[in-house]
Amino acid sequence: LKPIIWNDDKNTLTLLDQSALPFETTYVELKDPEGISSAIKLMKVRGAPAIGITAAYGMVTALTSDTPETLEEAIEKLTKAKKVLDQARPTAVNLTWATSNMLNNAKKYVEQGEAKSVNELILLLKRDAKKIFDDELEAELQMGIYGLEKINDGDTILTQCNAGGLATGTGLGTALAPVKVAHMLGIKVSVIAPETRPWLQGSRLTVYELMTDGIPVTLIADTAVGLVMYKGMVNSVMVGADRILSDGHVFNKIGTFKEAVIAHELGIPFYALAPISTFDLKSRVEDVKIEERDPDEVRTIRGIPIAPEGVKVYNPVFDVTPPKYVTAIITEKGIIYPPFDKNIRKIVEK
Amino acid sequence: LKPIIWNDDKNTLTLLDQSALPFETTYVELKDPEGISSAIKLMKVRGAPAIGITAAYGMVTALTSDTPETLEEAIEKLTKAKKVLDQARPTAVNLTWATSNMLNNAKKYVEQGEAKSVNELILLLKRDAKKIFDDELEAELQMGIYGLEKINDGDTILTQCNAGGLATGTGLGTALAPVKVAHMLGIKVSVIAPETRPWLQGSRLTVYELMTDGIPVTLIADTAVGLVMYKGMVNSVMVGADRILSDGHVFNKIGTFKEAVIAHELGIPFYALAPISTFDLKSRVEDVKIEERDPDEVRTIRGIPIAPEGVKVYNPVFDVTPPKYVTAIITEKGIIYPPFDKNIRKIVEK
Repeated sequence: LKPIIWNDDKNTLTLLDQSALPFETTYVELKDPEGISSAIKLMKVRGAPAIGITAAYGMVTALTSDTPETLEEAIEKLTKAKKVLDQARPTAVNLTWATSNMLNNAKKYVEQGEAKSVNELILLLKRDAKKIFDDELEAELQMGIYGLEKINDGDTILTQCNAGGLATGTGLGTALAPVKVAHMLGIKVSVIAPETRPWLQGSRLTVYELMTDGIPVTLIADTAVGLVMYKGMVNSVMVGADRILSDGHVFNKIGTFKEAVIAHELGIPFYALAPISTFDLKSRVEDVKIEERDPDEVRTIRGIPIAPEGVKVYNPVFDVTPPKYVTAIITEKGIIYPPFDKNIRKIVEK
Repeated sequence: LKPIIWNDDKNTLTLLDQSALPFETTYVELKDPEGISSAIKLMKVRGAPAIGITAAYGMVTALTSDTPETLEEAIEKLTKAKKVLDQARPTAVNLTWATSNMLNNAKKYVEQGEAKSVNELILLLKRDAKKIFDDELEAELQMGIYGLEKINDGDTILTQCNAGGLATGTGLGTALAPVKVAHMLGIKVSVIAPETRPWLQGSRLTVYELMTDGIPVTLIADTAVGLVMYKGMVNSVMVGADRILSDGHVFNKIGTFKEAVIAHELGIPFYALAPISTFDLKSRVEDVKIEERDPDEVRTIRGIPIAPEGVKVYNPVFDVTPPKYVTAIITEKGIIYPPFDKNIRKIVEK
């Protein structure tokens, strides 16, 4: 699974078109910031880390698609490209982080004389974009390796949503990293993927991703998460996280909380997998607002109505799992066990 | 809400076409066993009690649509009508129960001389069909009245699937009976309805039914059941049941178990509502096979694919909630509290 490929010979970026998944596997080849911005806007690429990587390469193409004469002109082009890219998804933190990072690096290289020509600047920026990708992959590999200690041969893992390599752009992922590392090492492992309404990331993306990698996966309706645990079909639960507080409260895709409570009740381990960048050591649980999205996401599926018109809908995007239900948090710096209010700071701040 | 209406002046049965809900509210008027059998087959009417009532009136129409000359001929016509009706849904127990009941009654009336003419026989069978409807409504009203003691003014009830008046044909229902009785009495009550994948009975039927009755209802994705309870938006959970064992294990629509576990964990009461006929005092929990349905129900929604073709699916129809998570069982004979292994027999066998 390769959602993002940089073609260094042609200076183009090939993206697996995620907006067409899982019905069509098509790739788009992009050569300039405008095309890349449009691909981000049209959700051909999605997931915070994947958008960051894509945007970083988008900055590179500002200089390769129409190569400037001078370094001054190069900085102008990069400044303009940043604007074009940033407006693609105005709320995506990773996007502006990546474009700011690339622009600031470029300015530094020019000011400090590290880049003496436009070509040298392009090489340095290519290296930086690759580093964003490599750092992400490295962190995920680490999570995968740490997580491996929680997987036994023959295990079945219940997940939620898509915290896989499509979302991160590396092909590996966070919650799915241990499963993929295990599979690479020849350890027998399979996954149960709940469809994850309303957006169906489970049925559309997780299932696609695992089938592509040859890892056995079974799709269930969200209603069946309880029964599969009750029937002993699940050895552990592994999910991603959108935000983890210093006391161990885990914010993740809606539906995570129910898996955690049932797992806890039935003695099944529940693991959240997330990079250190996910931790928010400042907010308290009461401070975090749970975003609500368009009611039509629940009233329709792929544009087809499934409920009476105008029905009142509550459509929260994520839920919060209290630390009591979390067996451990797996990061690229190691596994964090309870008591979380002590141990999270130890790892995050080290 | 009137899903089944017998028009005594015209000898016709009017059914709310449930196969078109919630997108179209249309009624079909039927006058003979063939038409009624076809309506059952096409799921224009569904739900065990509703099918039973419909089939009973189907037997009546065997004699009203083309009135026979003799009582002998009448019994022949009823025997034929039973065959036509029974084949509409071969696994529906209520269907064959209702048609057998009507045919046996008819034979008895003729043999014992209670019906001295075809017209007298028609009147007696109309009375019997009406009694099936009335007994159902009476039982549901009783459940509603018993359940009322668990509802406070301003309460919000979380349910699952559709255990409402559409399924029973009376317009009242089982799990929704207390809510409807409360609403009739001017007690403020609202409902949160999970969509209930894969069949979406929540978004298609429960929501339609409550909107029709003017009872406030909020639709959620199945993934959001945990969060609504966590956020204190739910005062109690009320669900129906397909089968209840003598020790209190409740078999109900897939997704019920997760609601029960979370409610238990958060101190929210969980009630199963079901008539005495739902109790199975013979089986042990290990003996009950959980039916699995067509994987395409999970792979598609209203015919539209939502997952990669050929993905492996586990699609169980119901799950089992152990007695530990059940606060009480509300029946037409009263409320049953733990210890269920003692108290269920007391009520059911009395």
